[in-house]
Amino acid sequence: MRPLLLFRVARLLSRPMSDDPRLTPLVASLPASVPFVGPETMERAAGHAFAARLGANESVFGPSPKAIAAMQQAAGEAWMYGDPEAHDLRLAIAAHHRVDPAHIMLGEGIDGLLGLIVRMTVAQGVNVVTSAGAYPTFNYHVTGFGGTLHTVSYAGDFEDPERLIAKAKEVKARLVYFANPDNPMGSWHSAATVQDMIHNVPAGALLLLDEAYVDLAPEGTAPPLRPADERVIRFRTFSKAHGLAGARVGYAIGPKDLIAAFNRVRNHFGLSRISQAGALAALGDQDWLAHVQRQVGAARDRIAAIGMENGLTPLPSATNFVTLDCGAGVERARALLEELVARGIFVRMPFVAPQNRCIRISAGQPAQLDLLAEVMPAALAAARARS
Amino acid sequence: MRPLLLFRVARLLSRPMSDDPRLTPLVASLPASVPFVGPETMERAAGHAFAARLGANESVFGPSPKAIAAMQQAAGEAWMYGDPEAHDLRLAIAAHHRVDPAHIMLGEGIDGLLGLIVRMTVAQGVNVVTSAGAYPTFNYHVTGFGGTLHTVSYAGDFEDPERLIAKAKEVKARLVYFANPDNPMGSWHSAATVQDMIHNVPAGALLLLDEAYVDLAPEGTAPPLRPADERVIRFRTFSKAHGLAGARVGYAIGPKDLIAAFNRVRNHFGLSRISQAGALAALGDQDWLAHVQRQVGAARDRIAAIGMENGLTPLPSATNFVTLDCGAGVERARALLEELVARGIFVRMPFVAPQNRCIRISAGQPAQLDLLAEVMPAALAAARARS
Repeated sequence: MRPLLLFRVARLLSRPMSDDPRLTPLVASLPASVPFVGPETMERAAGHAFAARLGANESVFGPSPKAIAAMQQAAGEAWMYGDPEAHDLRLAIAAHHRVDPAHIMLGEGIDGLLGLIVRMTVAQGVNVVTSAGAYPTFNYHVTGFGGTLHTVSYAGDFEDPERLIAKAKEVKARLVYFANPDNPMGSWHSAATVQDMIHNVPAGALLLLDEAYVDLAPEGTAPPLRPADERVIRFRTFSKAHGLAGARVGYAIGPKDLIAAFNRVRNHFGLSRISQAGALAALGDQDWLAHVQRQVGAARDRIAAIGMENGLTPLPSATNFVTLDCGAGVERARALLEELVARGIFVRMPFVAPQNRCIRISAGQPAQLDLLAEVMPAALAAARARS
Repeated sequence: MRPLLLFRVARLLSRPMSDDPRLTPLVASLPASVPFVGPETMERAAGHAFAARLGANESVFGPSPKAIAAMQQAAGEAWMYGDPEAHDLRLAIAAHHRVDPAHIMLGEGIDGLLGLIVRMTVAQGVNVVTSAGAYPTFNYHVTGFGGTLHTVSYAGDFEDPERLIAKAKEVKARLVYFANPDNPMGSWHSAATVQDMIHNVPAGALLLLDEAYVDLAPEGTAPPLRPADERVIRFRTFSKAHGLAGARVGYAIGPKDLIAAFNRVRNHFGLSRISQAGALAALGDQDWLAHVQRQVGAARDRIAAIGMENGLTPLPSATNFVTLDCGAGVERARALLEELVARGIFVRMPFVAPQNRCIRISAGQPAQLDLLAEVMPAALAAARARS
């Protein structure tokens, strides 16, 4: 058991650097931090691989076999740049959603698209609103372009649409970030609530609606697409339910002029040819998506049951993970995380109080959840002894 | 024959847009242009696929079979995010070059890395020096971050290191871009000349040495790696000789503090897991690289011969393309390009005078070059009739 190594790695990555005098003042002012330490980094520090990789909300159920086959086919064609317009994929996505393709922009995951939309709209002194403890990669981009972050606390374990909008009005925010379903808590709001939020976006602001997990949420979680609405841009991904996190394909749905403006700043040839082929095949295999949805549902139930058997409180989830309330503050949650990691189970936890009283466990294969059930009592006992 | 369609497509992409008022003043000021129109866009406009795709300096000889196999294997693991540190690949590259891995940064092609280094060093009003007619994607990034471009003309068909350095001194440039070998002319300077250039980089400036094509150049083209040298950052890629353009993997070699600063702004999880696996296997297959180098050499000779048979002057090349001087100004070159494209052969041409008296043809398979030889006389006759 070497849980402390994890934190040594994190410190190493954020050590102060001697600055190159040619950096812009903005970049020189940025911390050398990484939003997430990758599981491979932890494995190298620990000296062995995880038995269960359940920390990054990846889909252990894998991509569609048709997507794998398409990528294997495309591997031999990797000498060609990918189509910079991702035309076939863009048209397929547009047809899937029954919208004009001019409302769709592909990018290297939602992370890449968030970086671009922040670059397009945020300069030094521009105000941005998000929830305290929401997606840190978004915050990284805002800070990276000199924006000023204003946060609103969660209401219980839910993001708070009304207070996000109120804060946006108060600070005259350019951007408001809101994820539905939410990461890291797994909670969600109804389509009607989200539609109300869109309706109330103040003039001059843009709502970034991150729907990375929406394929795993109940019907009625996503409001109908009205892509001409200038108040909102929505983000979807092939990284979660479609099981293609490592291929890096996400897309934005928004008003045409805003979507077209991505062409002024994006890396036009940045989307892998293999990834485009994989995403296109994944989109075409809705049976596989339904299969994954069923597997994720079963895994959520199992994680919740394991939590309850051990005195932890599972939060309801509309995602491919379950957040377990450890019931005793950040120290207990962190200790349990470390004890699970030391037993070969990669999990993560929220960064900010009061959500950091929880740990977050991604949907696993039955055998992985058997292992989780097996090690949880000892991990929890060790965590209680420490915290 | 519908060559005009190409230009219709280009116009469409650059049509004026109604601006979103939430864009930053800088982004609102940017043209909606694309550095390169992709061949798929041209094919869609023409209604049929190219018979020979010889315009984007891709490697028609393909990636190593070992790289294909590694990517096919990794396709099934694409549900996992790629290692954000690209640890295995970075260490392999470092070992290959016998440098400390802390001098290496991976990115989504040289295009992606150029965007990051420009973001890190260029803000509005910062001066940047390049050659008139050199890589347009670099210029796109400089403009995109508000920098001011200063250009130096080529000396004949060569970039001019001395005048680039003199201009950098004159305008107190932060960045100087220099490609060796050069694209689009295929020319190159000796390692000694490049080392002199590095030696003369003025204080406060950084030389961006783009060595995308260096694997295809004669021995003695690249100066020895001295990665601690604060005056230069060098760029290499798996897109050219390694045949992985569609996988998007490039890397920078530079001083440790500057390399570490990429971590403040990059998209940490942006590198495809499949691409990392492919690049690692490609690097390990130096026999395949030698095979490609031989094939490229033969193709260069053949393109030169086809040019000479038709009264065009081939320029010496240290790359995987040959630039043919059409001998009669931009109209003749453009007409010949269009006539070749209309006959199913995708080629490109330089953007700026006097280089735009040429067309640029990538190394092809023997059958593709047979086709080139077959259609060239009629294409040239048609071009002469038009220009």
